[in-house]
Amino acid sequence: MTDVSAGGGRTPSRAVEQALVDAAERVLVRDGLGGLTVRAVAAEAAVAPMGVYNRFGSKDGLVAAVLARGFEGLRAATAAADDADPVERLLTCGRNYRRFALDHPQHYAAMFGAGWAAAVPTEELVDRAGAAFQALVDRVGYAVDRGVLRPGDPVGTAQLIWSSVHGAVSLELAHLGRTADPAASYEALLRMLLDGLG
Amino acid sequence: MTDVSAGGGRTPSRAVEQALVDAAERVLVRDGLGGLTVRAVAAEAAVAPMGVYNRFGSKDGLVAAVLARGFEGLRAATAAADDADPVERLLTCGRNYRRFALDHPQHYAAMFGAGWAAAVPTEELVDRAGAAFQALVDRVGYAVDRGVLRPGDPVGTAQLIWSSVHGAVSLELAHLGRTADPAASYEALLRMLLDGLG
Repeated sequence: MTDVSAGGGRTPSRAVEQALVDAAERVLVRDGLGGLTVRAVAAEAAVAPMGVYNRFGSKDGLVAAVLARGFEGLRAATAAADDADPVERLLTCGRNYRRFALDHPQHYAAMFGAGWAAAVPTEELVDRAGAAFQALVDRVGYAVDRGVLRPGDPVGTAQLIWSSVHGAVSLELAHLGRTADPAASYEALLRMLLDGLG
Repeated sequence: MTDVSAGGGRTPSRAVEQALVDAAERVLVRDGLGGLTVRAVAAEAAVAPMGVYNRFGSKDGLVAAVLARGFEGLRAATAAADDADPVERLLTCGRNYRRFALDHPQHYAAMFGAGWAAAVPTEELVDRAGAAFQALVDRVGYAVDRGVLRPGDPVGTAQLIWSSVHGAVSLELAHLGRTADPAASYEALLRMLLDGLG
């Protein structure tokens, strides 16, 4: 038999795993979390269901791999806020958070709802979720160091910001907001956070 | 045949409807939104499934009736904040909102998630949801009139408050918060809102 694990930095085995997560993301976007089954992902990737089970153990292991990718995307969106001005950095961070949610509504709903509850808490998933939050904590610390936010526990402050932006985008995604212009409401929310935490 | 609609202020027919919604709430609490089927509610209420269909038209009509009750509960919790001091009235309002969510997690998740998306948008449901939000708008107006919150559109201000408290309780219910004491974080959130909107 050929040793399929030989090769460069990304082994064929790793490439297959990534292709399965790619397929799972397409199924999530197309059919929602309820449609994300081993059978559907296997069909999308044109492999046997056993190939999915062998790599992810279960449907909930597959969900964990998809959510880990979602948190990596959210971390990257948050970390992309690198304005030198600390107020602008926080505003960019907040705007990127909303943009990520609006661009990936199925991922977002799964990451902070039923998907999180169902997913196997793999080391990869826990690490990626923690890294996404840490990117916000880092930006809070940058603002505190420059006197834009009040001194205090940056984790606690980041939690307050996260609560507010999560609530705003969740209501917007669910079409539950009571104002005519959700983008304007979101900008007002970010200004309120700066005023309330400054 | 006996005229079963004769009687006092609450007719037997209305009483049957209320008994079915009572049963639906028990099913929601016990089995979650996914378990809230016409068959399950009929069994819980010890009536034939056709009795449920006749009154609510469909499962999603039944969901609407259950959510309408949830919004009436949330309105009552919000309106119970009647402290004379406008700051205390807002704090009580915020605390009552969290208490409602923690006491009724299945209702809360359904009201602002999959249940809202699935429910038939009956006049009753739309009215109750609007009344719950209006109770918050009224308390914002009370605080604005007394100089505790900045002048401005009370609906827009209420939306910012709602976004923040909704995000906080949603993360708490999903066990996603990153701080050790969610009650203390929530109090800090309410103070941040007063500072940011004052």
